[in-house]
Amino acid sequence: MTTATWDQYEDEARRLDAADPLAAVRARFDIPEGILYFDGNSLGPLTHESRRVLHRTIEHEWRERLIRSWDEDWLAMPSRVGDLIAPLIGAAPGTVICADNTSINLHKALMSAVAMRPGRDEIVADVNNFPTDIYIARSVAEQHGMTLTLVKASQIPSAVSSRTAVVTATHVDYRSAHILHADEITAAAHAAGAMVVWDLAHSAGAVPVDLAGLDADLAVGCGYKYLNGGPGAPAFIYAAPRILADATQPLHGWWAHAEPFAFETGFRPAVGIKRFLTGTATVLSMKSLEAALSAFSGVTIDQLRAKSVSLTELFIRMWDEQLQTVGYTLGSPQDPDHRGSHVALGFAGGKQLVADLAGAGIIADFRPPDLVRFGFAPLYNTHLETVQLARKLAELGSAH
Amino acid sequence: MTTATWDQYEDEARRLDAADPLAAVRARFDIPEGILYFDGNSLGPLTHESRRVLHRTIEHEWRERLIRSWDEDWLAMPSRVGDLIAPLIGAAPGTVICADNTSINLHKALMSAVAMRPGRDEIVADVNNFPTDIYIARSVAEQHGMTLTLVKASQIPSAVSSRTAVVTATHVDYRSAHILHADEITAAAHAAGAMVVWDLAHSAGAVPVDLAGLDADLAVGCGYKYLNGGPGAPAFIYAAPRILADATQPLHGWWAHAEPFAFETGFRPAVGIKRFLTGTATVLSMKSLEAALSAFSGVTIDQLRAKSVSLTELFIRMWDEQLQTVGYTLGSPQDPDHRGSHVALGFAGGKQLVADLAGAGIIADFRPPDLVRFGFAPLYNTHLETVQLARKLAELGSAH
Repeated sequence: MTTATWDQYEDEARRLDAADPLAAVRARFDIPEGILYFDGNSLGPLTHESRRVLHRTIEHEWRERLIRSWDEDWLAMPSRVGDLIAPLIGAAPGTVICADNTSINLHKALMSAVAMRPGRDEIVADVNNFPTDIYIARSVAEQHGMTLTLVKASQIPSAVSSRTAVVTATHVDYRSAHILHADEITAAAHAAGAMVVWDLAHSAGAVPVDLAGLDADLAVGCGYKYLNGGPGAPAFIYAAPRILADATQPLHGWWAHAEPFAFETGFRPAVGIKRFLTGTATVLSMKSLEAALSAFSGVTIDQLRAKSVSLTELFIRMWDEQLQTVGYTLGSPQDPDHRGSHVALGFAGGKQLVADLAGAGIIADFRPPDLVRFGFAPLYNTHLETVQLARKLAELGSAH
Repeated sequence: MTTATWDQYEDEARRLDAADPLAAVRARFDIPEGILYFDGNSLGPLTHESRRVLHRTIEHEWRERLIRSWDEDWLAMPSRVGDLIAPLIGAAPGTVICADNTSINLHKALMSAVAMRPGRDEIVADVNNFPTDIYIARSVAEQHGMTLTLVKASQIPSAVSSRTAVVTATHVDYRSAHILHADEITAAAHAAGAMVVWDLAHSAGAVPVDLAGLDADLAVGCGYKYLNGGPGAPAFIYAAPRILADATQPLHGWWAHAEPFAFETGFRPAVGIKRFLTGTATVLSMKSLEAALSAFSGVTIDQLRAKSVSLTELFIRMWDEQLQTVGYTLGSPQDPDHRGSHVALGFAGGKQLVADLAGAGIIADFRPPDLVRFGFAPLYNTHLETVQLARKLAELGSAH
């Protein structure tokens, strides 16, 4: 077997980029000259539209209209942004709302699920879940005197029982990018009478999710990764229409009230997904997210997925042919059907590697103990960038 | 008794403004030409520094430095902003942190207080508290099978008992601006063995608070009113140093972990006030608040209070002499010692009045059933504006 030369990879990448139906979408982003950005799975880059909308929000809505902007625009924003996120995760309009951060939304979702399964005393969670999700699940279990059972995702279907109130897992593993069998896990939980809360932090905007098709109960996710909302952009929460009338969550801020500006002493939850709000929305951060979501305009989920797979397949082929011989191990599934939109490579001294890459204008991130993650964002990353990344990795690996 | 003419009020106002030690501070704000802004108690106006810092955050920290800005700046921001707020509320460095919204922070504070008073089954709250505070308190009580006792603030000292786990009230009433006797309420709660959580939403930045001197246990407050952080700016939470080692709160996000980036499966709370964080901070919104806090640079609490009282005293004198005869009732304490930094007037058809004022470039706000609130922000409102406001109110009242 002969492996390709770097020039051959580059030629192929140029052909793939030329045929990419999303090629023009990259122009919606303002990625600095000379930077190869492979960390959109941690923080999406600035869009031109976020800059424009933030300027208008600061100068017109805040400076000029001042308090009047609440009625004119801001009060409707959490629902509006939720409805922009909904089609990216297979959710109907009115079932997603933008609020708070992912940790808080997961707390609300789990508290809500537990309240709807009285008498059950167990929460089951993926042991490889993002740590925050485990901390939040444990805290909810402790508050209710429940057991938190941590098992591998593959064992969740056999772990759930009539004791289980709720199952929670992250759809795409934050380290390996392994895509869980959301259908099997959801079906097994439901068969046991339990609810399911999905964390879509590493899915929304890059990996297809069909919450309605899954019949998922609740879901949460992040606004600052593949949705490109900006640093610390607010998160989102979904609840299935069939549970919305009964769902409650304990953070009864006034924004979750049926009539916030009636200033009633008694709490009456809003009809629909608004009952998952808490207090005042962070306008500047949410505006940036709302604007960034326009980068998905005209883009289908199938196009996103095809581009994502094309990028990671090319990268993994180069790993196979060029990188594994110079010290890199593959920390992600080789089968694209089981892989999300980032690829993790193991490398002894990964932390230094990430610093060396940054020195060369290539941004990736490190997760202990020795994992380097490369996010391939279908809206803006190119095949040519992917070859340039692999070529630099080969060079740094050989010099190691 | 002869009352002054409007020209005489204006002459007096000009003299007061000329002698105002904070006169130069107004230039730190970018208030639109032709607008008289009396709603800083709901949404502070834009500062030049917030504009400058937001631009730098968008263009340099986000666009150019991307993910690297977390280490370079953003991770330290919640503590840094907390330390900027601390001197405004009589708190020591390291005891205040910026996070989430006021509703969520109140939930954390009450959950923390209840956990530190096991065996007690009552929460006592001011019945005139901001509704969100009552909703949150009731929800915490319900979660624990406790009783929520709502009484007038003046009755709190006699209502607290050995059953009471925690007392919560808002230091300055959101409708009347009545300043509660924080010292008496705190002392009475402590004498009964209960904790106290103060909501400083209408105090921080305008009305003196001495949390350390009060020996308050916990406090929360708002970033977008007198702190001018911008629409939906994140809130803050304070915990007394003596309770920090034992305090816990249930929203165990990774930012509350001792080592968030170790990605441990077990939760170990951070040392100090950071344990009151949840998930990722909303960077853009928090940056705007951080920048706005520089407007307090070189300003003493005594100067803030003196200016605030001078503005509201002038306004109430004009109410007394000119406005009460044309349909306005005073909805705030006449004694400045008991009055915060806004003044509420009752007026039949107050909602229309606020619209008519807005038509004349004067921004105030309305609270049902017929209360119109005017915020007098000592950093930027002037005595001359105060006379112009009263003059327009007299005109609208006479025409009513």
